[in-house]
Amino acid sequence: MKIGLDIMGGDYAPKAIVLGAIAAHQSLNAGEHLVLIGDTEQIKPILIEEGFNPDHFEYVHTDEVIGMGEHPTKAIVQKPKSSISVGFNLLKEGKIDSFASAGNSGAMLVGAVFSVKTIPGIIRPCLCTILPKIKGGTGLLLDVGANADCKPDILLQFGALGSLYAENLLQIDNPKVALMNIGEEDEKGNMLSMATFPLMKDTNLFNFVGNVEGRDLFNDKADVIVCDGFTGNVMLKLAESFYVMTVKKGMKDEFFDRFNYEQYGGSPVLGVNAPVVIGHGISSPLAVKNMVLQSREMITTGLVDKIKTAFK
Amino acid sequence: MKIGLDIMGGDYAPKAIVLGAIAAHQSLNAGEHLVLIGDTEQIKPILIEEGFNPDHFEYVHTDEVIGMGEHPTKAIVQKPKSSISVGFNLLKEGKIDSFASAGNSGAMLVGAVFSVKTIPGIIRPCLCTILPKIKGGTGLLLDVGANADCKPDILLQFGALGSLYAENLLQIDNPKVALMNIGEEDEKGNMLSMATFPLMKDTNLFNFVGNVEGRDLFNDKADVIVCDGFTGNVMLKLAESFYVMTVKKGMKDEFFDRFNYEQYGGSPVLGVNAPVVIGHGISSPLAVKNMVLQSREMITTGLVDKIKTAFK
Repeated sequence: MKIGLDIMGGDYAPKAIVLGAIAAHQSLNAGEHLVLIGDTEQIKPILIEEGFNPDHFEYVHTDEVIGMGEHPTKAIVQKPKSSISVGFNLLKEGKIDSFASAGNSGAMLVGAVFSVKTIPGIIRPCLCTILPKIKGGTGLLLDVGANADCKPDILLQFGALGSLYAENLLQIDNPKVALMNIGEEDEKGNMLSMATFPLMKDTNLFNFVGNVEGRDLFNDKADVIVCDGFTGNVMLKLAESFYVMTVKKGMKDEFFDRFNYEQYGGSPVLGVNAPVVIGHGISSPLAVKNMVLQSREMITTGLVDKIKTAFK
Repeated sequence: MKIGLDIMGGDYAPKAIVLGAIAAHQSLNAGEHLVLIGDTEQIKPILIEEGFNPDHFEYVHTDEVIGMGEHPTKAIVQKPKSSISVGFNLLKEGKIDSFASAGNSGAMLVGAVFSVKTIPGIIRPCLCTILPKIKGGTGLLLDVGANADCKPDILLQFGALGSLYAENLLQIDNPKVALMNIGEEDEKGNMLSMATFPLMKDTNLFNFVGNVEGRDLFNDKADVIVCDGFTGNVMLKLAESFYVMTVKKGMKDEFFDRFNYEQYGGSPVLGVNAPVVIGHGISSPLAVKNMVLQSREMITTGLVDKIKTAFK
């Protein structure tokens, strides 16, 4: 198994990423290899400084970088030698089994769809975020920004994708899937949620439990919460800002601690033909380590094949 | 001046409402009268218990109530003798100058539009919420649920309505108005926000400062944040759930304390021909008191006339 990691992506790259790779290495089993993609000239000094044997990793040298602020589609096209472009080429050619980066999220999404392509039957791939639950454990919110505008059949598929991820990666049996809405009653909502509700109610793709509201993000009403990428992105950033406030204010609490994105690795891209994980721009070594382990789990659980089978 | 208050609406009605009316009375000036609308048989014992002179208030007896769970339109039509229906009739006839209730929000919205009607030139009235800002002071988020689906010209008008409220009621000079979006860059967004951005950029109705994101709800980037009612409702409920968590966890903090909805009264309905305030279902006496004082400010500042002039 080869886990691809972009060393150049993220606000603290390459150092935080290399340190994360070193930390992840201790948790990998025999036969599980990390492939570092990026400027090897920049990687080596960090490994030496850490006294880490460079032979533990494999390397693919790249000498271009897609910046955090660059236009995703343009950058992917214009920088074929960038770590993100090279990473996706390796993924497409099967030379790595998963690809993770804390770099330009848009470029990661575009790269995933351009290179490994959308799984047949899936209308739009999506981006998930993993949420801590007040009573313990985790849940999923999707989409959180890959698709700002959605249609009912797209949201229905997100429910199926989220349910498969929750079952296989979060070890939740028969995950409860809900639709984010502005009221609990069946007939509530905007045009999108009102049109989506009956599709979800009738589906046998997942265990639909009805509508939830903004206040239900962290409680146990649902394991998987589905919404369009605009709503999900706004919610995610609002929730993060609260976490940041509690940290700034020095509030210590077990639940708020679990908000720390570092614990969950990154955001999986679901619906493409290979495991892809997008890390937070500010990813720390711990976040990178968890992103690597999350990539491994996506490979070992065979999530992509399970999604393919479900959408056959 | 006559400030109308529905005594029967809210989870703790009529007691919490009557206690709130008593508390508000101390802050009212000569000539400012509270008109209590509801079952006088239920009001009187509370006043006696509190040793409060009943002559301080005016009364309009009603013997029907619209329940919190009732269908708004049906209830307004089928219960013309309910406190909400009677309140709106008084408002329409000019017998009260404002109307506030912590009862069925949907019925309050429907009642406002049916009775005092939408101000000419305004496409859709909306519901605002007042937000605490981290650095002090307050801001506005609108719409928070009156219009689940919006169009760009509707959002543009929300910007103008919010700006007028912020200027007149929150005493903010030349309020900064922003569009809730999934990125700060001009071209970001879903179809709605992308189509709204250029309208706001070109408007002279208010001081547009660009896009903001979910994380900017409580900072100083904007005084007035505009979004569709679906997004606003989801954000508001998510933010409330955080506040409730900090309270449950016994976290004490000046900023989180200011989250307490009780301090702000209720949610003003903007765009109708008279001041209307909708209180939180769980309104306490303090919340009711502030809802009364907020109603008074909406009257004394002549907000409705200022909105009428702006949309002439």
